[in-house]
Amino acid sequence: MPRAKITRGDCEALDRSDRLSAFRDRFALPENLIYLDGNSLGAMPKAAPARIAEVVEQEWGNGLVRSWNIHGWAGLQQRIGEKIGRLIGARPGETLVADSTSVNLFKMLSVALQVRPDRRIILSESSNFPTDLYIAEGMAHLLGKHHQLRALASDAIEGAIDEHVAVVMLTHVNYRTGRMWDMARITERAHAHGAIMLWDLAHSAGAVKLALHEADVDLAVGCGYKYLNGGPGAPAFLFIAERLHALVSPALSGWFGHADPFAFEPGYRPAPGIARAAVGTPPIISLAALEVGVDLMLEASQDEMRRKSVALSSLFIDLADQLLGAFGFTLVSPREAAQRGSQVCLSHPSAWPTMQALIAHGVIGDFRAPDILRFGFTPLYLRYVDVWDAVMMLSAIMESREWTHAKYQVKAAVT
Amino acid sequence: MPRAKITRGDCEALDRSDRLSAFRDRFALPENLIYLDGNSLGAMPKAAPARIAEVVEQEWGNGLVRSWNIHGWAGLQQRIGEKIGRLIGARPGETLVADSTSVNLFKMLSVALQVRPDRRIILSESSNFPTDLYIAEGMAHLLGKHHQLRALASDAIEGAIDEHVAVVMLTHVNYRTGRMWDMARITERAHAHGAIMLWDLAHSAGAVKLALHEADVDLAVGCGYKYLNGGPGAPAFLFIAERLHALVSPALSGWFGHADPFAFEPGYRPAPGIARAAVGTPPIISLAALEVGVDLMLEASQDEMRRKSVALSSLFIDLADQLLGAFGFTLVSPREAAQRGSQVCLSHPSAWPTMQALIAHGVIGDFRAPDILRFGFTPLYLRYVDVWDAVMMLSAIMESREWTHAKYQVKAAVT
Repeated sequence: MPRAKITRGDCEALDRSDRLSAFRDRFALPENLIYLDGNSLGAMPKAAPARIAEVVEQEWGNGLVRSWNIHGWAGLQQRIGEKIGRLIGARPGETLVADSTSVNLFKMLSVALQVRPDRRIILSESSNFPTDLYIAEGMAHLLGKHHQLRALASDAIEGAIDEHVAVVMLTHVNYRTGRMWDMARITERAHAHGAIMLWDLAHSAGAVKLALHEADVDLAVGCGYKYLNGGPGAPAFLFIAERLHALVSPALSGWFGHADPFAFEPGYRPAPGIARAAVGTPPIISLAALEVGVDLMLEASQDEMRRKSVALSSLFIDLADQLLGAFGFTLVSPREAAQRGSQVCLSHPSAWPTMQALIAHGVIGDFRAPDILRFGFTPLYLRYVDVWDAVMMLSAIMESREWTHAKYQVKAAVT
Repeated sequence: MPRAKITRGDCEALDRSDRLSAFRDRFALPENLIYLDGNSLGAMPKAAPARIAEVVEQEWGNGLVRSWNIHGWAGLQQRIGEKIGRLIGARPGETLVADSTSVNLFKMLSVALQVRPDRRIILSESSNFPTDLYIAEGMAHLLGKHHQLRALASDAIEGAIDEHVAVVMLTHVNYRTGRMWDMARITERAHAHGAIMLWDLAHSAGAVKLALHEADVDLAVGCGYKYLNGGPGAPAFLFIAERLHALVSPALSGWFGHADPFAFEPGYRPAPGIARAAVGTPPIISLAALEVGVDLMLEASQDEMRRKSVALSSLFIDLADQLLGAFGFTLVSPREAAQRGSQVCLSHPSAWPTMQALIAHGVIGDFRAPDILRFGFTPLYLRYVDVWDAVMMLSAIMESREWTHAKYQVKAAVT
């Protein structure tokens, strides 16, 4: 390619002029580790342990049950939801933290089917993140033979949206390829045929610029433990456009979504607004950790984050072109930055042992079956030199054929 | 009544001979506080902060995504589930920690309806904890006009179990009265009519002796943050009798319940056994806190706990008879210990301000609408003198009419 050779010095220069560089020190990062897996589990904000200890020792230990009122536990799902709403371009009152992404998907599918009671098809892509498909399958199975999940190849989705489709359910940034859908265009297409649009933002929130209200999105779900740095298994979030609130009542109608939970009425009356999408008592300690991550994210400029995210992933691709050409990798992610989330995926016939060797040398990405090496780029705590060093390490492992060692062939439970 | 007058000295003597007394020091209890609300939120085990800090700082901060394998996060729901299984008389492999009690109720209802596809009635009592009714209502509504929640008065339940009932859903110990169902008898009655039996153990697990396997129970759910001392909003648990495992696949079919979640297969295949009831990624930090509470509970003899629980609540009733007779309280809980969980409820026309005055004086119970003062008795951290002091304080507040002060009339969001 005609591009001049990139040097480590170039990367150092980029780091010196990086306007987000001060954020790196806000995260606890193990020494000698290059962490390219913030898209699986975000790094820990340094402020998290103290805040969590406060919730545990003061609010739980001393405040006990009084903390539901005194320390605002009762409003935590909405308070953090509002903050996430600002990160995804929602209007106030449209976002709630609750449950897991999977459970929220089920709730949002129930909402969509409630709004479109005469339609029976849930349309999705077969390369969607599996839990999305499993949940839709479970919903269709529960409702009986009339409802159906139709999972198609990505390029067949747009053509398949018609008057029979109740809801189009897509993941905005694909977990395996990093390819990003044009949210506004697909949403418009769904609406043109009267379908409800449900976006899974697991790999988008905190990673790419989102404008849910502007794109006229109906429903969304997303993840707290990836780019939002909310801690392992952090509670997830959901979004319901305000215009739908009065029409719907999620199928999981638990007491935390009741209009007056402590009146202990025998019949369900949904709370006004987004609060109706809450179900049971939320895990307060994990919620508190999530809030620390979200607060930190809100301190940074989202435009700046996206700019750096693109610069990091583009640098990775350029360096892969420059240094890995001889080793049989294929770029799976779009080369065009506008179509790419905050990750780059390479396929390789020996992806599993290669990733294990990389991890053994302190470069953490992850493997996605069957043959993908996935690298996530988190602009708040990654440096350009990290990208350089990671690609150099990968190149060295391929050059030395270290990945062929027996110890790297062993499979793990969680990949 | 013919009973001799009880003195504080008698209570001190009971404390001296209490074989569980050493456990009190294992909990962090604020000074000058008598905590009779462990049935709403259990007290904090002193071991919790250090364990939580370890999970946060070491496992998340340093281990990062590697901790799913290295620190066993992937198996945490089953590991803690097994431990709770020992507390509820389940066999190995029948109990899982997951989601909230409300979400688990929905899953267990879906299981029951799957096992009894030709039956359409969910039978419950109208005085059940509201979220149980709301969830059943949501399920019936989702499934359409053929399914129905039938909520009856407690004394009409047994007679209403017939061949149309798919599932009998009851809370073992009533949240408002403390009345305890005869689990074995009702389960047998349900089975005699071919109905599935689903017990909510929110106010039972860790509080009364349970023998789910012996009673031939089909399904159960329960709470981690009450008597299990798992922390605010701790994840809940569920139980599915082994004989049903192969027959069912919960409607919330998420990737954590898949046979091979990291194979990323497009179609759902339920995991073998109880693991199929998992849904999304669980909140690891809150799970770790729950395990500390469960571990502590497992150190104590359950027979000893039940014996002391009954002694504490009986003492409360005796002292109420002795000291509160003039103030218009009515005992709502059964006087017969065998029919009572680990709580005592009194009704009073001024229950709300009376409880607020009690709390202001360091005796924490709770109010349950419309007119109930609820007192929970946790045998691991309560002393007999605490019961004495609590009733004395209540008597003093009534005597002085302090509860009439304006400041105690203000309602709180969470009661």
